Amino acid sequence: MSSAYQQLSAIFQRLSRFSHLSAIAGCDMQTTMPPGGSRARGEALAEMSVLQHEILTDKRVGDLIQEAEQQSLNDVDRANLLEIRRAYQQATLLPASLVEAKSIAGSHCEHAWRQQRPANDWKGFSANLKEVVRLSREEAQLRADANGSSRYDALLDVFEPGMTSAKLDSTFGELKTWLPDLLQQVVEKQSQQEIIHPKGPFPVNAQRELGLDIMKVLGFDFNHGRLDVSAHPFCGGVPEDVRITTRYNENEFLSAMMGVIHETGHARYEQNLPQQWRGQPVALARSTAIHESQSLFMEMQLGRSREFLQRMLPQVKIQMGDQPALQSDNFVRLTQQVKPGYIRVDADELSYPAHVVLRYEIERALIEGEIEVDDIPALWDEKMQQSLGIDTRGNYRDGCMQDIHWTDGAFGYFPTYTLGAMYAAQLFQAVKKAIPQLSELIREGDLQPVFNWLQQNIWQHGSRFSTEQLLLNATGEALNPHYFRQHLEQRYLHN
Amino acid sequence: MSSAYQQLSAIFQRLSRFSHLSAIAGCDMQTTMPPGGSRARGEALAEMSVLQHEILTDKRVGDLIQEAEQQSLNDVDRANLLEIRRAYQQATLLPASLVEAKSIAGSHCEHAWRQQRPANDWKGFSANLKEVVRLSREEAQLRADANGSSRYDALLDVFEPGMTSAKLDSTFGELKTWLPDLLQQVVEKQSQQEIIHPKGPFPVNAQRELGLDIMKVLGFDFNHGRLDVSAHPFCGGVPEDVRITTRYNENEFLSAMMGVIHETGHARYEQNLPQQWRGQPVALARSTAIHESQSLFMEMQLGRSREFLQRMLPQVKIQMGDQPALQSDNFVRLTQQVKPGYIRVDADELSYPAHVVLRYEIERALIEGEIEVDDIPALWDEKMQQSLGIDTRGNYRDGCMQDIHWTDGAFGYFPTYTLGAMYAAQLFQAVKKAIPQLSELIREGDLQPVFNWLQQNIWQHGSRFSTEQLLLNATGEALNPHYFRQHLEQRYLHN
Repeated sequence: MSSAYQQLSAIFQRLSRFSHLSAIAGCDMQTTMPPGGSRARGEALAEMSVLQHEILTDKRVGDLIQEAEQQSLNDVDRANLLEIRRAYQQATLLPASLVEAKSIAGSHCEHAWRQQRPANDWKGFSANLKEVVRLSREEAQLRADANGSSRYDALLDVFEPGMTSAKLDSTFGELKTWLPDLLQQVVEKQSQQEIIHPKGPFPVNAQRELGLDIMKVLGFDFNHGRLDVSAHPFCGGVPEDVRITTRYNENEFLSAMMGVIHETGHARYEQNLPQQWRGQPVALARSTAIHESQSLFMEMQLGRSREFLQRMLPQVKIQMGDQPALQSDNFVRLTQQVKPGYIRVDADELSYPAHVVLRYEIERALIEGEIEVDDIPALWDEKMQQSLGIDTRGNYRDGCMQDIHWTDGAFGYFPTYTLGAMYAAQLFQAVKKAIPQLSELIREGDLQPVFNWLQQNIWQHGSRFSTEQLLLNATGEALNPHYFRQHLEQRYLHN
Repeated sequence: MSSAYQQLSAIFQRLSRFSHLSAIAGCDMQTTMPPGGSRARGEALAEMSVLQHEILTDKRVGDLIQEAEQQSLNDVDRANLLEIRRAYQQATLLPASLVEAKSIAGSHCEHAWRQQRPANDWKGFSANLKEVVRLSREEAQLRADANGSSRYDALLDVFEPGMTSAKLDSTFGELKTWLPDLLQQVVEKQSQQEIIHPKGPFPVNAQRELGLDIMKVLGFDFNHGRLDVSAHPFCGGVPEDVRITTRYNENEFLSAMMGVIHETGHARYEQNLPQQWRGQPVALARSTAIHESQSLFMEMQLGRSREFLQRMLPQVKIQMGDQPALQSDNFVRLTQQVKPGYIRVDADELSYPAHVVLRYEIERALIEGEIEVDDIPALWDEKMQQSLGIDTRGNYRDGCMQDIHWTDGAFGYFPTYTLGAMYAAQLFQAVKKAIPQLSELIREGDLQPVFNWLQQNIWQHGSRFSTEQLLLNATGEALNPHYFRQHLEQRYLHN
C-alpha cells in the first residue's frame, strides 16, 4: 500500500496530465482554431475544469493531506506537500455557486467590454463591472477569513503568495517619491536627441526569422517549444512543449522583436523547471511575479541593453536590410525611448510602473470597500495627471477601460508586473556581481554563464522555496527596489 | 430527478467533451508539436483514455442502461441507447490487463517496425507480430463469446457493425472473379495511350492554394475546420472544428490535390453530422466504411471524373502555370492511370481492392487460427502474383511489412477500404438517378444538389440507422457490388 503522500503525488500527477491537454487546447484556441470551433472548445475546457475541481476537492484529498503531514518527508516532498495543501485550500475555499457566478459575470463583462471599450461606453461597462466587483469582494472575504488577512491581501496571495499590501504600499510608495521626477528628467534629456525611425515595410517572414534568431541566442529549446502567431502574445503550453506567440505589424518590427524576447524569458523558465519533480506542484513556476521577472530579465535587463542590441544588430540588418535607423547608437535610442502615454501595454520601461501603481491603488481600495466602481474614473484621471501628466477625462477607452484584467475579476494581478521588474533588476545586479566580465560576454553573445546562473538560482527550484527565500538565496537580500531605481537611472539618465 | 436515460446522456456528453480535448491534442501532435513534447503528450493522452475507460465502465453505467431500456423513448433516443450499450459492452468486455498488454505489445511492435521495415527485417518483425496476434486472438475470442460470432467477425464488428466474413467472402469472392481480368484489359488499353507528365517544381504555397480552392468547391466549411500539413494525411478534430491534412512534394502536385479531395470527403461528413444530438453517440459517424465511402465519393466518384477535373482545370492552371500536361484529355488520363504496384497506399482505384482482399484473406485466417505468422510471406507472394502479377518474394519491406495496421493489432480494419469504395459507387449511382442533369452540374461546379442529397441521405443521420438500413434508405437496396464493377468498367474500359 502506498503512503498518503504517494497517493497525493499520483493524484496531482494525474491532474497535471489533464492540465497538459487543457494547456495545448488553449494554445490551439489562440493560434489555430477556426472561429466556429470556439463554443465547443469552451465547453470542453470548462468540463475539464469541473473535473479537475472535483478531483482536487474530493474529501479524500483533504484526509490524505492531513495524513501525509504526519509522515516524515524530505525537504522537496515537504515543499510539495505545502503546495498541494495550498492548491487544495484554494479549491475548497469557495463554494461552487460563487465560482460559477463569478465565471458567468466575468465572461459577460469581458464579452460586453469588447464592444463597450471601442464605444467608450463607461455607463454600460460599469454596470457589469459592479457585479464582478461584488462577487470579487465576496471571494476576497472568504479568502481573507481563511488567511486571517485583509480582503485585498487575500487576492494578492493567489498570484503572489506571501506578498501583502503593506509591503506594496511601502515599495510602491517609495517608488512614487522619485519616479515622476526621473520620468520628467529623462523625457527632457531624450527631447535633445534626434532619432531616426526605421522605414518599412518589414515582411512578416523576415520578422519571424529575426525572432527565431534571437530565440536561439537566448537559448530557447526548439525541441521543446515553438514560436507561433496570436492576437495577444503569450507564453503557454507545458514545460515539455512551450508555446510562445507574437503578432506582426509590417510597418514596425521592434514590437514583435522585443515581444519575442519577453516571451522567451517566460519560456526558458518553463522549459527549465525541475524535470525530476515533473507533474508535482513543486515543479511549477514559483509565482506570477517571479515568472514576470524572467521575461523582464530577458527583455528589459538584457534585451534593451546596449551590449545585447549591438550583438543582435548584424542579424537585424540581415533580416530587415540596412538603413540609417539601424546605425548602432540610433538603434539603442530607439529601443530605449521613453514616452509617457495612455496605454499600459504600450508603455516603456520607465512609465510602466506608474500605470501599475495607479491600478494597484484603485483596485486595493475597491476590494477593501473604500471606493466604489463609480469613483474609478475620477481617481484614474487624477492619478494619471499626477504620475504621467496625462489628461484622461472622458476618455474611458484609453483610461480605466483599457485593460482586460478587471473584466473577469483578476484583482491582485497588476502589482506582479512591477514586482517582476524589481525582481529582474535585483537578479541582474546579482548576475553582474557573479560574472565580472558580463558586458563583454553579452556583446559576444555568450550568454551561457547567465543562463547557468538563472538555472542555478531560479529555474531549477520550481516552487521549492517561498518567493522571499528564493530571492534571498539568489541575491543575498529580500526584495530591494533600490536596484530597480539604480537600473533606470543608469540606463536612462547616466548613459 | 432526471431519468436513467437523461443521466446516461449527461455522462456521454461529458465523455464527448473529453474526447474533444484528446482529438485536438492529437491533431496538434501530428501537425504542430515539437518532437521533444511527444512523451509528455503520450502520457497525457493515455491518462485521458484511462479516465474515459473508468467513466464508461462504471457499474452505474450498466445499471442505468438496463433501467433506460425500460423507459419509453423516441426513435432517436432508442438508437442512441443502442450505441451507448454498444460502447459500454465494447469497453467492459476486455479485462484491463488484456487492453494494457495489447497496447504495450502494439506500441512495441509498431515502434520496432519503423526500423525493421526499411531494414527488410522480417525475422525481427515477425517475432513481435506473433505476440500482437496472440493477444488479438485472445481479444477476438472474448468478443466472439459475447457476440456469438466467429473470432474474426467479432473484430470486424468493431469497425463495421453488422458486417460478417460470410458477406465479405461472397462480396470479395465475386470481385475476384472479374477484377484481375479487368485490370489486365485496362493496363493493356492504357499502354496504347501517350501521357505527358507535368514538369515541376510546384511550390508548396501554390499546391496549398489549389487545395483550398478545391475545398471551397467541395463545400468545406472553413469556419469549422482547417487544412494543415502532416507526415501522414488524416481527417481529425471534432465536428465543430475538423482538421484535415496533406503532405506536399514539390515534384508532383496530383497526390496532394487528390489527397485533399479525399480528406474533404471525410470532413464534410464530420462537419454535417447532426447538430441537435451533438455529444451523444448517435450523432457520431455511422462506421469506418461509411466514413470511407464519403471520402471515396469525393475522391473517386466525383474527384477523378472527367467533369469535375474539367471544372477544376482553370484553377489548376492558375496555381501551377499552364503546360502541355494540363491539356484537358491528358489531365484526365493522368488522374485515371492504372499501374499495379507493390504499395497499397500508392495504388490506383482499380488495383486497390486487390491489395485489400489479399490482406482480408490473410488476416481472417490468421485470427481464426488457420494460419500462423510464419505463413504470411508465402501467402502474400502467392496472392500478389495471382491478383496483380507482382513478385514480392524476399521483399518484405514492400510486401507484408508495408502497413502499420497489423503492428498494433487493428485486425478487421482493411476490408472497410473496399467496402467504402463499393458504398461510394452505389451512392453515386443513386445520386445520378436522383439528379438527371448531374454531369452538367459537376462541369459547372454546382455541387449543391449533390451535397443536399448526401446531407439528406447520409450525413444528417449520424448513427441513427444501422449501416444496412442507411444504405437501403439511401439507395433502395442493400450493398450491391455491381455498381462498383459498373463504375470501374465505365471509367476505365468504355470511356
